[in-house]
Amino acid sequence: MRCSPPTFVSGIGKTKFGILNKSIPELAYEAMFKALADSNLSINDIDMIYVANFAAGPLQNQLQLNSLIASLIPGINIPILRIEAACASSGAAIYQAALMMNQVNNVMVIGVEKMTNINIHDATKSIGSAGDMIIDQKQGLIFPASYALVAQQHMLKYGTTEDDLALIAFKDHQNSKLNELAHFFGKEVSMEMIKKSPVICSPLKLFDCSPITDGAAAVILSNKKRSDRDIEIVGSALATDTISLSQRKDLTSFTATKIASQSAYKQAKIKPSDIDVAEVHDCFTIAEIIAMEDLGFCEKGEAKNLIRAGETKIDGKIPIGPSGGLKGNGHPIGATGTSQICEIVQQLRGESGNRQVKKAKIGLTHNIGGVGGTCAVHILKK
Amino acid sequence: MRCSPPTFVSGIGKTKFGILNKSIPELAYEAMFKALADSNLSINDIDMIYVANFAAGPLQNQLQLNSLIASLIPGINIPILRIEAACASSGAAIYQAALMMNQVNNVMVIGVEKMTNINIHDATKSIGSAGDMIIDQKQGLIFPASYALVAQQHMLKYGTTEDDLALIAFKDHQNSKLNELAHFFGKEVSMEMIKKSPVICSPLKLFDCSPITDGAAAVILSNKKRSDRDIEIVGSALATDTISLSQRKDLTSFTATKIASQSAYKQAKIKPSDIDVAEVHDCFTIAEIIAMEDLGFCEKGEAKNLIRAGETKIDGKIPIGPSGGLKGNGHPIGATGTSQICEIVQQLRGESGNRQVKKAKIGLTHNIGGVGGTCAVHILKK
Repeated sequence: MRCSPPTFVSGIGKTKFGILNKSIPELAYEAMFKALADSNLSINDIDMIYVANFAAGPLQNQLQLNSLIASLIPGINIPILRIEAACASSGAAIYQAALMMNQVNNVMVIGVEKMTNINIHDATKSIGSAGDMIIDQKQGLIFPASYALVAQQHMLKYGTTEDDLALIAFKDHQNSKLNELAHFFGKEVSMEMIKKSPVICSPLKLFDCSPITDGAAAVILSNKKRSDRDIEIVGSALATDTISLSQRKDLTSFTATKIASQSAYKQAKIKPSDIDVAEVHDCFTIAEIIAMEDLGFCEKGEAKNLIRAGETKIDGKIPIGPSGGLKGNGHPIGATGTSQICEIVQQLRGESGNRQVKKAKIGLTHNIGGVGGTCAVHILKK
Repeated sequence: MRCSPPTFVSGIGKTKFGILNKSIPELAYEAMFKALADSNLSINDIDMIYVANFAAGPLQNQLQLNSLIASLIPGINIPILRIEAACASSGAAIYQAALMMNQVNNVMVIGVEKMTNINIHDATKSIGSAGDMIIDQKQGLIFPASYALVAQQHMLKYGTTEDDLALIAFKDHQNSKLNELAHFFGKEVSMEMIKKSPVICSPLKLFDCSPITDGAAAVILSNKKRSDRDIEIVGSALATDTISLSQRKDLTSFTATKIASQSAYKQAKIKPSDIDVAEVHDCFTIAEIIAMEDLGFCEKGEAKNLIRAGETKIDGKIPIGPSGGLKGNGHPIGATGTSQICEIVQQLRGESGNRQVKKAKIGLTHNIGGVGGTCAVHILKK
C-alpha cells in the first residue's frame, strides 16, 4: 500500500511550541491558516481534513474534534476525521491522508495538543494512557520507566553510556536554541546541566526526557505539484506492534519502526544512507538511539559511535533533529508528527536559516506511539 | 468522493450489547473473530484495521487503541488506525475503510465501547465531551438538554407531540425484545411505562433516552464479492457541522445528515423512497424524527404522521430500527455505527429471524456524532 498518485506537501504551518495560553481551537486555527497561507490555497480548495490529537478527551473533556474543527470553518461541511495513535497520532494521520490522494486533490492534516495549565497529575496520567493499562501500568511501567528499561537493556547489550544519552540532549538543545518556534528557543543548555540534572528513572535524567508542550502543526497534501517549494512524499508507511511490553521479545529494537521504514525505503527506492536529514521520535534520548539503528542509519549497537563522532549534528553525516527534536522543539503529542514534516519540508526547501542542513535533498520523519506500538515513517524528496 | 471499486460487507460480528463484565480488548476480540468466522477469512487476509472508539481515554485511561488491537493479534503488524467522531466513530470508520478499497483487499472495522462499571458522574461527563466544552456546556447544554431544545423547537414548529416520541420508544422496544444481542432483549415495555417514566429534561423522559451500554461490533469490507451473503455498499458519505449549537441556524434539521444522505443517494443512484429498511441514530427519540425528515423519508414536519400510522414498524412502509435502534439495542457509543451495518447486512441477507423485514433489498444506516456535528450515511444493497 502506498500513496498514489504522487503526493506533495504544498503547505506547512506551525504555531510556537511551548507553554501557551491558548485553547485547542485557537492553536488549530493558527496552524491551519498558516498552512493555507504558505500553500496559496484557500480553505475552499481543501477536500478533506484529518485532525490528529491524543488527549483532549481526558485533559480538556473535549472529543469529536472533527466537529470542533468544522466549527472553525462553518458552512464548509467537508469530511473531517480525527485520528488518534498516541504520540504517533499526526504521523498516522499523514499516512492516512497520503492514501487519499487518488480520490481528492488537497487534504489538510492538523496535529494539535494542549497539555499545560493542567493539574500535572492529570497530564501524567493521560500520557500513561498511551501504554497498556491492564498489564504494564499495574507493574509501574509508566513511560519513563519503560524507556529506562529500554536504556538499561541497550547499555547492557551494546555498551551505550549515559554520556551518549547526554550528547543527544546537548545536540537537541543546540538545535532548538536556533529554532524560533521551538519550546526551548534561545535556551542555553550545557553538558554540565544535562549531566547534573536529577534522575527521573535510572539511567534517564531530566534532560533525557522531552518536555510537556502545547502546540499545533498543519500540513497540506496535494496530488499536483504547483510550486517549486512543494516537496514530494516518496515513501509513507505505518506499522503497529503490541501495546504491552510483556509481549515483546527484545526491548532494544522496535519491530514497528523496522517494518515501516523498510516499506518506506522500498517505495522511495532508496537506502538509509541516502537520507540527508531526519527528524526521529526522541521522546527520550534513548529512543533516538533505537530509532537510528532500526531505521538502518547504522548497524545495531553502533548509534553511539555516530553520536560520539558528532555525525548527527546539523553539519554531520546524518543530521538528526535539526528542529531540536522532541527534546528541544517540544512534544505536543498530537502535533509531533506534523511538526516533523514541517521541519523536513523547510529543510528540503532550503528555508531553515541558521539551522539549515546543507545540500539536503532527501529527508525522513519517524513518529512513534508509546514504546513502539505504532510507527509512521515518511520519506520526502526535493 | 466515493468508494471504488465496489465495496462488499463480507463479514459481520457483534457481541451482546448491555451491562457486561468484559474489558475493551475482550469485547473487541469477540467481535473481530465473530466477523472473521462469518466471512470465512483468516486474520492474515486482513490488510488494514480501523478501530472506532469514543471514550476509552477518559473512561479507561486507555488510548493508542490501534496498538491495543495489535496486541490481540501479535506478529501481524499491519496498519491499524483509531478513528473517533463521538457517537459517529464507527460510522466514520466505515466511511474511511470504504475509501481504501482501491488499495487493499480486506479491511476490518471494529467499533468498541465500555461504558458501565464506571462512576456514573465520569460516564456522564465523558458523554458530554462529544459536545462543545467552551461555549455550550458552560450554558448547561449537556446532551439531554440539547436534544430537549431540539424537541421543543420541533414541537413548536411542526406539532410533534410527546405521544409521538413515546410511539418511537415503544416501537424500538418491541423490536429489541426480539433481538437476542440487544441491550433490552426480552424486556416487556408498555406505553404506560414509557409515558409515566420520569422527566429527564422536558419534554424528554427516561424512555426517550438511549441507555448506557457496553459492546463491540465488527465489519469486514472487501473489494470482491465471494459469497451470496456478501452485501454491497453502494453509497458512503460523511459530512460535518459545527460542534456548538450557538452556530446553528435551525435546531430542527441537521445539515450534516442532509449533505451526507444526498451524497449517498446520488452514489447509489436511488431516492429515499427506495429504502426498504433503515437504522437511524435515535440517541433520543426526537433524533429519529429529525433523521426521518432529513433523510427524506417524508417532508419536513411529517415524520409524526408515518409514526402514528405505524409505518416505521417492522411490517410498515419504511421500517426503522429493526434492531431496536439505539434506544432498544443499546448505544455503546463507538460500536453503534458498525452495529447498524451488522443489522442491515443481516436484514438484506434475510437472516433476521422473527424481526426480518420482508423483501428488504436496499438498506440505509445513519450515524450521528453529538447533535449532528458528524453524520455518516451508508446505503447497502443485496
